[in-house]
Amino acid sequence: MTTRAWAAVKKGGTLEPYEFEPGDLTSDQVEIAVEYCGICHSDRWMIENEWGNAVYPLVAGHEVVGRVIATGPEVPASLKIGARVGLGWFSESCMACDLCMHGDHNLCQTAEQTIVSRHGGFAERVRSHWAWATPLPDGLDPAKAGPLFCGGITVFNPIVQFGVKPTDRVGVIGLGGLGHLALQFLDKWGCEVTAFSSSPDKSDELRSLGADTIVNSRDSAELAKVAGKFDFILSTVNVPLDWNSYINALAPRGRLHTVGAVLKPIPVPAFSLIMAQRSLSGSPVGSPATTRDMVEFCARHAIAPVTEFFPMSKVNDALEHLRAGKARYRIVLKADF
Amino acid sequence: MTTRAWAAVKKGGTLEPYEFEPGDLTSDQVEIAVEYCGICHSDRWMIENEWGNAVYPLVAGHEVVGRVIATGPEVPASLKIGARVGLGWFSESCMACDLCMHGDHNLCQTAEQTIVSRHGGFAERVRSHWAWATPLPDGLDPAKAGPLFCGGITVFNPIVQFGVKPTDRVGVIGLGGLGHLALQFLDKWGCEVTAFSSSPDKSDELRSLGADTIVNSRDSAELAKVAGKFDFILSTVNVPLDWNSYINALAPRGRLHTVGAVLKPIPVPAFSLIMAQRSLSGSPVGSPATTRDMVEFCARHAIAPVTEFFPMSKVNDALEHLRAGKARYRIVLKADF
Repeated sequence: MTTRAWAAVKKGGTLEPYEFEPGDLTSDQVEIAVEYCGICHSDRWMIENEWGNAVYPLVAGHEVVGRVIATGPEVPASLKIGARVGLGWFSESCMACDLCMHGDHNLCQTAEQTIVSRHGGFAERVRSHWAWATPLPDGLDPAKAGPLFCGGITVFNPIVQFGVKPTDRVGVIGLGGLGHLALQFLDKWGCEVTAFSSSPDKSDELRSLGADTIVNSRDSAELAKVAGKFDFILSTVNVPLDWNSYINALAPRGRLHTVGAVLKPIPVPAFSLIMAQRSLSGSPVGSPATTRDMVEFCARHAIAPVTEFFPMSKVNDALEHLRAGKARYRIVLKADF
Repeated sequence: MTTRAWAAVKKGGTLEPYEFEPGDLTSDQVEIAVEYCGICHSDRWMIENEWGNAVYPLVAGHEVVGRVIATGPEVPASLKIGARVGLGWFSESCMACDLCMHGDHNLCQTAEQTIVSRHGGFAERVRSHWAWATPLPDGLDPAKAGPLFCGGITVFNPIVQFGVKPTDRVGVIGLGGLGHLALQFLDKWGCEVTAFSSSPDKSDELRSLGADTIVNSRDSAELAKVAGKFDFILSTVNVPLDWNSYINALAPRGRLHTVGAVLKPIPVPAFSLIMAQRSLSGSPVGSPATTRDMVEFCARHAIAPVTEFFPMSKVNDALEHLRAGKARYRIVLKADF
């Protein structure tokens, strides 16, 4: 059955209506009828072939919410036709390597990425291995949930992986699609939360999202004042920062964690790490199990992305809005084929 | 009572006989009659004022083994006159801050350092807060134990702090005073141990210390072959390395940990961390409790530094031997006042 979609047919091109034949569903796959799909900056980078791995026509979209409409014969019976699921950056893992067998399907070295060399969620339908189709719990608004499956799990995952504690003092750098979710997660996690913001005029909004304190990230004197304070600082930006100030802002045993793929290497003075047993780290999106934990946590604490909606047929307007840096905080496309 | 010692009276100077009045013992202090004192590279850096914090006359020495000969009134009764103890880099912590109260006396921000603005172990007697005087268990050779209290605990500590597991694949960079102890610890910890060596002719020796595999650290092709392999790589060197090769040698979830205070910042590509949830970290010596665990572990597994002995009166010859890079693997001075 032909699948209708929106595709870039060349590098950086406007998305155009596009149809393709997806072939047979494999035994482990589910087919998802797309209801909503968030737009992540990675969609833009793929459309523009920033990472050199784009294949055109390219159907982006990897923050999908929709309903299961078909299942292969090996899909667990618990994942039924009609179930509402979310799908993020990964669409398949090998399920057999040491990493998958440890539950780290997100670190599987042969994991398939939803929009790399295959078609993603700016479409009527999208497919994935059953393991990466996460059922939405009751209480989660499906219209807003899409961004949880890439932006959300990217910032939720390190909180789990590195054992951030409710008694910790934490900071978030970059308050866009990822950062505004990190504030909510860390607030509900029980932490004392600082937002490092370059727009102090957004303070009220940041406080409503969970920030206890706002530090002006453009004011080096303010950064110096919080030296030695934080157990965990999460950077969601992909531009070079005043790294030394943030490393120095870590308490003993503190961790600076980046999920932003800044291209220029981060210069780390060994002495700053050694003196206070500090760490620098990074991580990709979380595993299917961590994603399940995240959506339960969101449902229980009424955590949701702040979203702006566009019909999918206006995807080019939506991308323009994103490129202009105007998204507050995450754009969601509503499928309207 | 006057204390005889060997002191540098000026920056980089030859050590000369020196006497000083230590004043009254404080209520929490013990006085240790020095029997042996290892020489650590930090002694050299202090004598040469590499870190800008030397005060002359400077009595170096912070890998002390000796007997308690006096105790202040607040010293716990369990630490008796005559007890054989070891003393390392720190000689006092405040005991009251959050870090001390959590057991992280080594991260106490006001911790006193044995040879900074006070006199260390190249002397007849040296003093410390009782918490930093670690009793030697039976079965540990006091003549060889000194280097455990700085070099040893520096490499033992991260194994504990970062939860290295007996099932882990680990590597050690730099096979001198610290590295040769790291090989022994990690071998007895149950790990699969790789030594990154620039002198493959030392292979037999490295294997006898616990290495299962030797990788020639000067051969980039050999480094490339172990990409993605290691859960934990411990660097003990203080010169810039081919950092990218070592980061790439880490398995998913792997950690590159440095205890070598290399001055030039380590350039870390964020993407290498993100893709595989890797960490970079550093740490100082361990806490008193971790030091106790270490000496028990050494006694149980017959772990000991490989040492060369000099009488303390030949300390200048010993320092020359160290400066020439000839120490195999750690020099210990025997007090002969």
